Amino acid sequence: MLNQEGCPGNMLAIKDAMDVLEGRWKLPILIALSSGSKRFRQISKSIEGISDKMLARELKDLELNLLIRRDALDEASLIAEYTITEHGRSLEQVLRALYAWGQEHRRQVIGK
Amino acid sequence: MLNQEGCPGNMLAIKDAMDVLEGRWKLPILIALSSGSKRFRQISKSIEGISDKMLARELKDLELNLLIRRDALDEASLIAEYTITEHGRSLEQVLRALYAWGQEHRRQVIGK
Repeated sequence: MLNQEGCPGNMLAIKDAMDVLEGRWKLPILIALSSGSKRFRQISKSIEGISDKMLARELKDLELNLLIRRDALDEASLIAEYTITEHGRSLEQVLRALYAWGQEHRRQVIGK
Repeated sequence: MLNQEGCPGNMLAIKDAMDVLEGRWKLPILIALSSGSKRFRQISKSIEGISDKMLARELKDLELNLLIRRDALDEASLIAEYTITEHGRSLEQVLRALYAWGQEHRRQVIGK
């Protein structure tokens, strides 16, 4: 993409992927769920600083994007469990690429 | 990262990489420069909708992040040429990973 005249059509897919990851909370939530299904309160406890309102909004967004699944355990009391989906786990390669580049970037920019 | 208990320390490098790519204009600018060095006006013409003020700001930011280099061609009239650096080109792998995942995401979410 950067080794030839870039194709603007590729930008749409890149933007889609960026949108899914953007913001402060989505990755911490996915990481919290990567070790197993959790209830709302368990996720909330494992992520410092997130409000219930924000967590509810982000969970909804991740669910709509098919990255997590919500399973109702008890309809009466609205208890549910959240599980990362296969599609959610498929972000692994993206995260690895971002991580490797981010580390190198840190070396380049701060190392100077 | 998503296949085991995620390490919060990794988040910093991932966030660094995301920060560099975020926003509407950085990628189009890098793509515009991927085919060769360009002057301000040439970049401006190749990116629809960007204002001069925004382009100047983004070029400065990309330069500070060592993704592009600014070479003064004529100090008197402030003419300069912008070139993507090796570090800028090293984003290729990140873009490929984002592109591949974004395409699959589109299939998953819109294909339903």
